[in-house]
Amino acid sequence: MGSDYKIPYKIYLEESEMPTHWYNVRADMENKPAPLLNPGTLQPMTAQELGGVFCDELVKQELDDDTRLIEIPAEIRDFYRMYRPAPLVRAYCLEKALGTPAKIYYKFEGNNTSGSHKLNSAIAQAYYAKKQGLKGVTTETGAGQWGTALSMACAYLDLDCKVYMVKVSYEQKPFRREVMRTYGAEVTPSPSDTTEVGRKILAEHPGTTGSLGCAISEAVEVAVTNEGYRYVLGSVLNQVLLHQSIIGVETKLAMDKYDIRPDIIIGCAGGGSNLGGLISPFMGEKLRGEADYRIIAVEPASCPSFTRGVFAYDFCDTGMICPLAKMYTLGSGFIPSPNHAGGLRFHGMSAILSQLYHDGYMEARAVEQTEVFRAAEQFARVEGVLPAPESSHAIKAAIDEALKCKETGEEKTILFGLTGTGYFDMVAYEQFHNGTMTDYIPTDEDLQVGFDGIPKFPGNLQ
Amino acid sequence: MGSDYKIPYKIYLEESEMPTHWYNVRADMENKPAPLLNPGTLQPMTAQELGGVFCDELVKQELDDDTRLIEIPAEIRDFYRMYRPAPLVRAYCLEKALGTPAKIYYKFEGNNTSGSHKLNSAIAQAYYAKKQGLKGVTTETGAGQWGTALSMACAYLDLDCKVYMVKVSYEQKPFRREVMRTYGAEVTPSPSDTTEVGRKILAEHPGTTGSLGCAISEAVEVAVTNEGYRYVLGSVLNQVLLHQSIIGVETKLAMDKYDIRPDIIIGCAGGGSNLGGLISPFMGEKLRGEADYRIIAVEPASCPSFTRGVFAYDFCDTGMICPLAKMYTLGSGFIPSPNHAGGLRFHGMSAILSQLYHDGYMEARAVEQTEVFRAAEQFARVEGVLPAPESSHAIKAAIDEALKCKETGEEKTILFGLTGTGYFDMVAYEQFHNGTMTDYIPTDEDLQVGFDGIPKFPGNLQ
Repeated sequence: MGSDYKIPYKIYLEESEMPTHWYNVRADMENKPAPLLNPGTLQPMTAQELGGVFCDELVKQELDDDTRLIEIPAEIRDFYRMYRPAPLVRAYCLEKALGTPAKIYYKFEGNNTSGSHKLNSAIAQAYYAKKQGLKGVTTETGAGQWGTALSMACAYLDLDCKVYMVKVSYEQKPFRREVMRTYGAEVTPSPSDTTEVGRKILAEHPGTTGSLGCAISEAVEVAVTNEGYRYVLGSVLNQVLLHQSIIGVETKLAMDKYDIRPDIIIGCAGGGSNLGGLISPFMGEKLRGEADYRIIAVEPASCPSFTRGVFAYDFCDTGMICPLAKMYTLGSGFIPSPNHAGGLRFHGMSAILSQLYHDGYMEARAVEQTEVFRAAEQFARVEGVLPAPESSHAIKAAIDEALKCKETGEEKTILFGLTGTGYFDMVAYEQFHNGTMTDYIPTDEDLQVGFDGIPKFPGNLQ
Repeated sequence: MGSDYKIPYKIYLEESEMPTHWYNVRADMENKPAPLLNPGTLQPMTAQELGGVFCDELVKQELDDDTRLIEIPAEIRDFYRMYRPAPLVRAYCLEKALGTPAKIYYKFEGNNTSGSHKLNSAIAQAYYAKKQGLKGVTTETGAGQWGTALSMACAYLDLDCKVYMVKVSYEQKPFRREVMRTYGAEVTPSPSDTTEVGRKILAEHPGTTGSLGCAISEAVEVAVTNEGYRYVLGSVLNQVLLHQSIIGVETKLAMDKYDIRPDIIIGCAGGGSNLGGLISPFMGEKLRGEADYRIIAVEPASCPSFTRGVFAYDFCDTGMICPLAKMYTLGSGFIPSPNHAGGLRFHGMSAILSQLYHDGYMEARAVEQTEVFRAAEQFARVEGVLPAPESSHAIKAAIDEALKCKETGEEKTILFGLTGTGYFDMVAYEQFHNGTMTDYIPTDEDLQVGFDGIPKFPGNLQ
């Protein structure tokens, strides 16, 4: 490459160029995401009802389908400056290794201790809780990225933080627990006997390795039954996608600075926070008819909510105590197979992304985990970054698209989100190295289990 | 803080501003570091003798006491662009938490997958090995940072990489091993039965948890007895300090850009690679009488080579097969107590830094590990970065200096090196959280053991 390259390896915005507003993609959606429903009345949740679970300001953001730009409070911008702007990296070495004419860029969100993009929303949610004078927050975490991020944000703001961690991750990732403890959080493996819903799940499914859905139920129960606590969630919600729009807005500013226009935008999809954040300003242009982009969501074949789920109202948690969201879902009783490594294990999908997918604004594909780890290793060896398994889903799809360009000779520009680092995923990497990692594609019968016991009503799961 | 701050949180150089040359501090030293001695003849090692162990170009750099600036090859600069420039961070949040009038800056070298500054020299050494047409390299690693860095560099250049890992780290940090495997390295716990010297050490000290000195002996033996292999070392050597000068040169450029002048410069010191790199251009000014800085080396009380070692010729390895260096040393038979966490476990110290310390150009202090972890946790909670135990020695000293400023009201500018992240040190963090971490200050008798069996000759250990 030498010194003749025009685009730097890493494009950093100056701090003075950093976004001052989050972008609310709902403002540009013709078909708004369906409202959350009260699980008791099946009526749209009111602000007052939501206020029992979430902070007031976050409720406002959750329900706001109209305001296009929402100012980022100065205190949050200060915190963002500790680890942002995140670099937009030109993957010169990967391009060379693949021999592709495609130009590959990735937005790297792993350059902070939480190791992922989750911190972008964690600090916002913690900030609003603090501002409301609360004592603390409760949450769940799967792979541990969200719990770590929230612990960091709470330590910074001196807020109490109770984390319910999916049991399989708690056991496979003891070091994650210690990171959270370093930041002062209280971490409990879920399902646990500390909550009513946890005890019920344990009784019904003894030996379960847990799921995000269970952990959410427990965290919500603790929040609503303890004075001065609210629940916070790291993905799925409209408010989270709003905060994560910082990823996409920064990316777009950096690309515009160098006159780069992506043809394909790729993100991994679990609950949708990274994907929704990355694509938001690009999706806005697409919705407004100003530009066209191919947008691809990549999900695990073992937890395929977009590609094999149904678009319907469902509970956000296993315990069926949370509101219902209209989303692509595998059923709130779905628990990923124990051989599923890493995150992206939520049974549903952001209502915003679900609506956009339903309306044809984006594609989705499912990939198997051994091919994901193969892509991860290939990427690590040439690009230096050790990617999280979640992020590696996007890498896999980006490599596939780049290889298609190699066949056709097209010089497409591919952008993907590298959401985080894999430092705490070495058990999975070890399985991959030892050849003990397996793939799992659920059968249709397997998938049916997720819907067992969910009450039926018009408009929801039939 | 808000928007009124003049110095950004993070100062990044543009890629176009990045250094093109390493700075060789030896050129400005009146008293040059003493030459390496051949352990058989006790005469200075010739280039030819060194060439059996190291690559030819690195031998040249090792012996070059005169060339002030050495050009960084374009290929290495390209690699540097993957993760450099490293940010110079203003620790606004730490300053606020301490209530100090001091201004604290840290150069953060942990923003790459190896998690530390070690990559700066790893890529250089791997590059020269590749250029010489070698098959591969051998090395040792303690905490695992160097082995990880070298594995990454070798993967990038398609070189074979054999790593001897200090047994205690191999056992306490299994995930480090998997990271190295991800990058294709072969990792062996040391002492091992794969080498003659390893078998000898095992016979004499059954149950030893190993030391850097043992691992070096094994790696060197493998390099000199296998065709097409050379040995590479992550610290101590002149060549390593040369490569690591990139840290200091970048730091100085970034500080000059904002008219910042440090009063105190602090680095942790094990073999001296980070400290030597960080201080180099500042030390150059000091040596040339152009500026004065207070420079402080911080080492573990359990491995106190500067503060309690002797300045004499000693072997660089336990097996006494490597050349002798004139340095501050605890004796090449010294093995840190098993309760010593993290790196900074080498018995000696860079010859360059040893000479500078001996000549009064810098200070040194020793700190105990529980106070180091306390500083690490305090730093993590406000600055967000989870620091490596090694780096946290510098944090501890920086906090102490900042608190002195609080007492005196002085607005000193403190710069320290944050060499890396602690993602793979969670066993030690867990011990700290559980209260099972202990301190250990060796007695004078304990320290005497390191010198047992070392042959005496005029000028070396008496």
